[in-house]
Amino acid sequence: MNPAPRGEPSRPLIGISMGDPLGIGPEVIVKALADPELRGRARFLIFGLHEVLELAADHAEINPYWWREPYEGLPRVENGVLLADFDEIPWGRTPVQRGPDELAGELSYRFVDEAVRHLRAGSLDALVTGPICKESWLLANHRYPGHTDLLAERFETRRVTMMFVADRLRVALASVHIPLFELRNHFTIGLVHQPIDLLNTALREWFGVEHPNIGVLGLNPHAGEGGMLGDEEMRIIEPAMTMARNTGIRVSGPLPADTAFTPDSLRRYDGIVAMYHDQGLIPVKMAAFDRAVNLTLGLPAIRTSPDHGTAFDIAGKNRANCGSISEAIRLAIDLAIIRRNTRGCLAAGAGERAR
Amino acid sequence: MNPAPRGEPSRPLIGISMGDPLGIGPEVIVKALADPELRGRARFLIFGLHEVLELAADHAEINPYWWREPYEGLPRVENGVLLADFDEIPWGRTPVQRGPDELAGELSYRFVDEAVRHLRAGSLDALVTGPICKESWLLANHRYPGHTDLLAERFETRRVTMMFVADRLRVALASVHIPLFELRNHFTIGLVHQPIDLLNTALREWFGVEHPNIGVLGLNPHAGEGGMLGDEEMRIIEPAMTMARNTGIRVSGPLPADTAFTPDSLRRYDGIVAMYHDQGLIPVKMAAFDRAVNLTLGLPAIRTSPDHGTAFDIAGKNRANCGSISEAIRLAIDLAIIRRNTRGCLAAGAGERAR
Repeated sequence: MNPAPRGEPSRPLIGISMGDPLGIGPEVIVKALADPELRGRARFLIFGLHEVLELAADHAEINPYWWREPYEGLPRVENGVLLADFDEIPWGRTPVQRGPDELAGELSYRFVDEAVRHLRAGSLDALVTGPICKESWLLANHRYPGHTDLLAERFETRRVTMMFVADRLRVALASVHIPLFELRNHFTIGLVHQPIDLLNTALREWFGVEHPNIGVLGLNPHAGEGGMLGDEEMRIIEPAMTMARNTGIRVSGPLPADTAFTPDSLRRYDGIVAMYHDQGLIPVKMAAFDRAVNLTLGLPAIRTSPDHGTAFDIAGKNRANCGSISEAIRLAIDLAIIRRNTRGCLAAGAGERAR
Repeated sequence: MNPAPRGEPSRPLIGISMGDPLGIGPEVIVKALADPELRGRARFLIFGLHEVLELAADHAEINPYWWREPYEGLPRVENGVLLADFDEIPWGRTPVQRGPDELAGELSYRFVDEAVRHLRAGSLDALVTGPICKESWLLANHRYPGHTDLLAERFETRRVTMMFVADRLRVALASVHIPLFELRNHFTIGLVHQPIDLLNTALREWFGVEHPNIGVLGLNPHAGEGGMLGDEEMRIIEPAMTMARNTGIRVSGPLPADTAFTPDSLRRYDGIVAMYHDQGLIPVKMAAFDRAVNLTLGLPAIRTSPDHGTAFDIAGKNRANCGSISEAIRLAIDLAIIRRNTRGCLAAGAGERAR
């Protein structure tokens, strides 16, 4: 990605895809950016539907603070919040029934698709994605398990890792959306090494930790207890840690997962690598359910998102908490500024350098 | 078990096995019972070594508060704390090297073995077990993965479930000490139904919850997301929940494990059933590392223990926290009193009644 050209306003431009129109995405975006302090820190371009955002603002008794333009390619955002309105597709439904829906799937896909195009072109400094519904995407014939996979495809990389940031707790996942027992067929040294490498780079370049100490969790109870409760620690995790050590990365483990997230333990590590979804996300959501942020590692661009889904059950009721997406926007801005100052060579590039 | 005969002192008699002499067991027991309030609530019989307890008391600057008798069958405990001393086996080592050790394994096995004999005979009202080292037991040729398995064998039952209590968080485990990917071969409807049934009974009879609402976790990420991320929820967990419902048990789920332990979610459930070790123990130890108690469900007797192991790395340094074993002793006393008042028909018996 190129640095901002001369004369460009200095505040970063943050793209926000609205997510599923029937989910809580529109509501939490409207609420988060209602904070003038947050709005003052960057310029924002929302890819979404004016009609839906307006309704959410109305429910929340928030005066619309954004400009609207029909989406016809990247508009110029001088300051504040601009909504790129995808209104050429007639929406106009009364969202009484909230759940998987083909049109919602098609629209939420287009928001992200266009946003990612501008992210790749370097026209956005970062992207924050609102929650989508996988089933709706499927109904609209877009077959991605989630944002991260779409991003990996568009950026033509397979070295992508999901990381979660919740206050001082930073967790990268070796695997994500895979049935637990199927993981067995994918559990390789490379699978475990990649998040160690990418987390190390992210901690150094983005979180200002000079020489991170990374705690790597075991897969089995008690981290296998010396082979008595499973051998994946010895066969796979330890060799992956050795690979990491050979490139100068500080790693500790394999740690028994159950005691790795106690306060005493967390003080020892700058970041944790978890082997599977629940192992990493139980502690993240327990520690900071409404403040945790999902950050994609391995892309040559910045992408964050809240840690929650569409939450159809509470959508449209003005009950959603915008804490997580506020933090996601905040982190995107912080990283965009760090990136401008360091001019490139972030997660992906640095990961290669370390090899 | 028979109620206490007439004329017996009314305070319950709590057996405590000292655990591995080289671990932190002796230290945390000495520290916990140094609290006169706790000591005043019951009578205590420690199965252990005077020499080791005395050293621990010395390090902690605690004046010995126990009587000592050589162990020759069950002694009479009028009040206070009696140590049944297994000193016919010469110990007398300077425990500089702390780790797996055959003699420590033999001794810690005998402490439990004798204590369980008296527990079965109804001479103890409850048993609290100090932490042992499995490798030491193996060196001494005692092949049990842990206390729970020994107890199940001695009480001739296979319906035993591990439960953890940490303040208001109560978690029962469908599986415990098994390699994660091996669980696949044991993951049956019965395996999931048993902890639901036993937890329901325990909550009703021991924790005073009239009609418990039990949250049952999914196995896969997002509890399988309707089959897209695994089918064990539909094939195994849901049928187990249906079985439970058919006997009048209130169950909710399968719940996505990552959001089940947030404060909002926990308010909804009186207890949680987790599918495997780390899924249940990450939240327990994160919420209350030094206060969590392990409680065995399914026995016709009361047995609790702290949630930590021998911790050889800090043993002998007077650095161990006795919070967990204090809570384990407290819970054992509470349950022994409830049991006396209700005269029998607890977890095991009531579990049968519910079927």
